[in-house]
Amino acid sequence: MTVKIFTTGGTLDKVYYDANSEFQVGDPGIVEVLHEANVALDYDVESLMRKDSLDLTDDDRSLIHDRVAGDPASRILITHGTDTMIDTAKALMDIDGKTIVLTGSMQPARLRVSDAAFNVGAAVVAVQTLPAGVYVVMNGRVFDPATARKNRRAQRFEVRGEPPAED
Amino acid sequence: MTVKIFTTGGTLDKVYYDANSEFQVGDPGIVEVLHEANVALDYDVESLMRKDSLDLTDDDRSLIHDRVAGDPASRILITHGTDTMIDTAKALMDIDGKTIVLTGSMQPARLRVSDAAFNVGAAVVAVQTLPAGVYVVMNGRVFDPATARKNRRAQRFEVRGEPPAED
Amino acid sequence: MTVKIFTTGGTLDKVYYDANSEFQVGDPGIVEVLHEANVALDYDVESLMRKDSLDLTDDDRSLIHDRVAGDPASRILITHGTDTMIDTAKALMDIDGKTIVLTGSMQPARLRVSDAAFNVGAAVVAVQTLPAGVYVVMNGRVFDPATARKNRRAQRFEVRGEPPAED
Amino acid sequence: MTVKIFTTGGTLDKVYYDANSEFQVGDPGIVEVLHEANVALDYDVESLMRKDSLDLTDDDRSLIHDRVAGDPASRILITHGTDTMIDTAKALMDIDGKTIVLTGSMQPARLRVSDAAFNVGAAVVAVQTLPAGVYVVMNGRVFDPATARKNRRAQRFEVRGEPPAED
Repeated sequence: MTVKIFTTGGTLDKVYYDANSEFQVGDPGIVEVLHEANVALDYDVESLMRKDSLDLTDDDRSLIHDRVAGDPASRILITHGTDTMIDTAKALMDIDGKTIVLTGSMQPARLRVSDAAFNVGAAVVAVQTLPAGVYVVMNGRVFDPATARKNRRAQRFEVRGEPPAED
Repeated sequence: MTVKIFTTGGTLDKVYYDANSEFQVGDPGIVEVLHEANVALDYDVESLMRKDSLDLTDDDRSLIHDRVAGDPASRILITHGTDTMIDTAKALMDIDGKTIVLTGSMQPARLRVSDAAFNVGAAVVAVQTLPAGVYVVMNGRVFDPATARKNRRAQRFEVRGEPPAED
Repeated sequence: MTVKIFTTGGTLDKVYYDANSEFQVGDPGIVEVLHEANVALDYDVESLMRKDSLDLTDDDRSLIHDRVAGDPASRILITHGTDTMIDTAKALMDIDGKTIVLTGSMQPARLRVSDAAFNVGAAVVAVQTLPAGVYVVMNGRVFDPATARKNRRAQRFEVRGEPPAED
Repeated sequence: MTVKIFTTGGTLDKVYYDANSEFQVGDPGIVEVLHEANVALDYDVESLMRKDSLDLTDDDRSLIHDRVAGDPASRILITHGTDTMIDTAKALMDIDGKTIVLTGSMQPARLRVSDAAFNVGAAVVAVQTLPAGVYVVMNGRVFDPATARKNRRAQRFEVRGEPPAED
């Protein structure tokens, strides 16, 4: 089974640049994560853009949509910043016949403590096992973009209207 | 959805004890992994034993079998050493009506570079999305225990008979 | 021997805040570094400010000067951002009878790959072994602030005028 | 200033080998530590042996002694397992005119939480700043081998007879 992976930037890819004293989007973090997990899957990684998801424009979403729709692979994984991940997911819901999974992380992959490897592992299995459709995979759960939201305070994704998870 | 997690030891749980200059099985590594990923799932972790999987006996497998079969949860995740993970998986294949996923890691969860968080993330989604059956989730893939094996030299799981993955 | 540690912020202390998608100065990173190294020294940590060193004002330097000069300890370690570490070091050179060591890091202490623990270890020994004076300890070397500079391109400190180090 | 670094093995160098399910001494960990700290010092690393320090023989100590005594460098750093570090240090005390510093770690350098980088940073400064003599640098302190011991329970080095450090 071949999985196509598109990267768009987001926290997962952030590295610290001392030169300007800030974290910025660097090379796709998923490449190193997949390598460290010694993943034996047939996959191909392509970087579409390197942006904080708050900076994604309609044109960016349009590009993502066209590249996903036009790709020959039927199983597509997208790494994406968390702040507008659900917006991008919704913009892809008209694409038929493909399993499309979006994931990202709240902490850069290069931190000692990060959710990046966990989320990528979760998304890699989701994209292989789920039927056609668009899904957001975060915090160990599979979300329907139509009902999901990022709870910024709790630093996790949740279903709108469900009682808050206990810690 | 409630997931029951049984831990049995293995490399995932190994910590370094200076007192005897060796790595030994410590507390279940999955607890810290789930915490670091801020997992919002309803889960319960129970430690059945703390063993290198090469040291598991028939009695140990019998205990694992009975606890899995007798648990009210229909979705069960087991962390396990990789050397005999497939043997234990096969011993559980007579249990009907439950989705049972085994995972582990080649490198301890506490190493800077480890496959542990990735594998646990993958297994957490697999146990929620797959139909009833027994599965081994390693290296980003879902394996049928009947045809899987650990390739010790390549440090990854594979399907018996398939051409070796390229690196 | 008692060592007084003042923290002022800088990259060493940076943590990633998902809420605003950026790294910011958090709690003093040296506390965790000293704990992880199981340091048995008699030391006391006090946070003077939490700033990127480019944001330090004359008033901030004046405060640092007064607190160092007025502290009863004769061995004082200061963690500081790297961009203006030498400026602050020079501002302390009129203080007699104390061994004052400044250190920091090019990468946040919480990254998987960081120079933070190495630099703090180096500074902790320097402050105990060097005679009275002001020193900058970075990249495994002890610098005289009067002749040191940060080479931003090479991401290391060096003596002005010396040939560039080979990698 | 040129520093000669001899490595002998010990916990600092331990890596996890899945093939035999244990940690064993691998390549010298100090090489990666010095690289990650972007150390600009003029140094040369040479591996003398790769052993747990409990396995060092009189012949091994004799070899270490001869290589240290015969090396043209006057500043020599030795990485060593902690269990017999003091024994080796004592065996080197007849060498005149050189500053000899021994260090190591309680946790492998490749663990997410390790004292390795801190200890190496401390030793690198000690070997440059201390007068001729033999020193053990651990837990942020400089010890005289004649009066130091490893407190195995507290996982730290201490001076024999001093009151135990508080945590």
